[in-house]
Amino acid sequence: MSKLKLNITMSLDGYVAGPNPTLEHPLGEGGERLHQWAVATRSFREMHGMGEGGTTGEDDAMVAAMFDGIGATIMGRRMFSGTGGPWGDDPWRGWWGDNPPFHMPVFVLTHHAREPLALEGGTTFHFVTDGIHSALEQARRAAGDKDIHLAGGADVVQQYLAAGLVDTMLLHVAPLLLGDGTRLFENTNAKQSGYECVRAIASPAVTHYTYRKSAAAQ
Amino acid sequence: MSKLKLNITMSLDGYVAGPNPTLEHPLGEGGERLHQWAVATRSFREMHGMGEGGTTGEDDAMVAAMFDGIGATIMGRRMFSGTGGPWGDDPWRGWWGDNPPFHMPVFVLTHHAREPLALEGGTTFHFVTDGIHSALEQARRAAGDKDIHLAGGADVVQQYLAAGLVDTMLLHVAPLLLGDGTRLFENTNAKQSGYECVRAIASPAVTHYTYRKSAAAQ
Repeated sequence: MSKLKLNITMSLDGYVAGPNPTLEHPLGEGGERLHQWAVATRSFREMHGMGEGGTTGEDDAMVAAMFDGIGATIMGRRMFSGTGGPWGDDPWRGWWGDNPPFHMPVFVLTHHAREPLALEGGTTFHFVTDGIHSALEQARRAAGDKDIHLAGGADVVQQYLAAGLVDTMLLHVAPLLLGDGTRLFENTNAKQSGYECVRAIASPAVTHYTYRKSAAAQ
Repeated sequence: MSKLKLNITMSLDGYVAGPNPTLEHPLGEGGERLHQWAVATRSFREMHGMGEGGTTGEDDAMVAAMFDGIGATIMGRRMFSGTGGPWGDDPWRGWWGDNPPFHMPVFVLTHHAREPLALEGGTTFHFVTDGIHSALEQARRAAGDKDIHLAGGADVVQQYLAAGLVDTMLLHVAPLLLGDGTRLFENTNAKQSGYECVRAIASPAVTHYTYRKSAAAQ
């Protein structure tokens, strides 16, 4: 069966976004610094049409492999659009332009129904209003024998963790101390304690930790 | 002037102790796993009279250098004794036996006055009842031109951080997810955001991060 794989960047003090997010700064104050390690890589620049250049090495390899073996993505509404509420007459089409880097079905958890949005390159956003179990079921059907990428944000990740549905976690820990913002490990019923670290790869910019459910927790 | 240097081990999800600490398990459930990286080293075994053996390498070098250039230590009452409250007739003499590994004056923040406790090897515990500023002043006098080691626990560290008095932080991050317990970065007025990482050293067991106050925060 498809595995649900969390892949997210966190500050060393546990935040996946800074305080006071706005449409201009959707990751909150200082939050964009979390992703500098990824943005600096060659693969990120290629994926996002930013032209030549960028770093190679472990961080680049992490970005390059991000969607390997992945057939569907799940994310929260705020990760898709920065805000909540009704979609309005000219609804937001995501942060990623006309040709998003997913190239697969993306299931967006929201309280507000909306028709699917098909963009270039095989990315279709499906808006799921009946909760995390439904989104996972739809993602499994879409992914076939591939796995499912759990992208964020914190609220959706916490719901999947608390429900015991996350199979692996790839945590990119940037050595930043944001001091405030949105914590990843909250409201999880401590379920993260059922995972063990099976791999840690350090670069100067970030350390990549892979966790699997420990035998006792399976 | 002496610098105040925090040196502490934290889980990847931000805890310096597990839940439900007792006298038998002063670091809480699962908390002793935090320190496995240190206990495994040759220097830790030497310091604590555990005999020959132990690992060498980066983790061992960290333990060996722990008290280099340090002339005084500050810690909280619970780190010294596991419990709070009056000292009683047969007061606790610390976790470290007759010859503790400090070999310097140690200032213990407590609400309950007590005469200094001089043990073998130059370690004297002084009990400070008038708060963190007083303890720091006394530690500075004792340290002379050396620096001051801030050992923990979380409550005392948070007070010094919130007051802007911590000069450097050496955080040993073990890739454990404890899920619950005592968080390090809480009640700090977000003061940790004024520090920048200047060094990160990874071993398979732990990553050692050194933080200094950033220019803007000084």
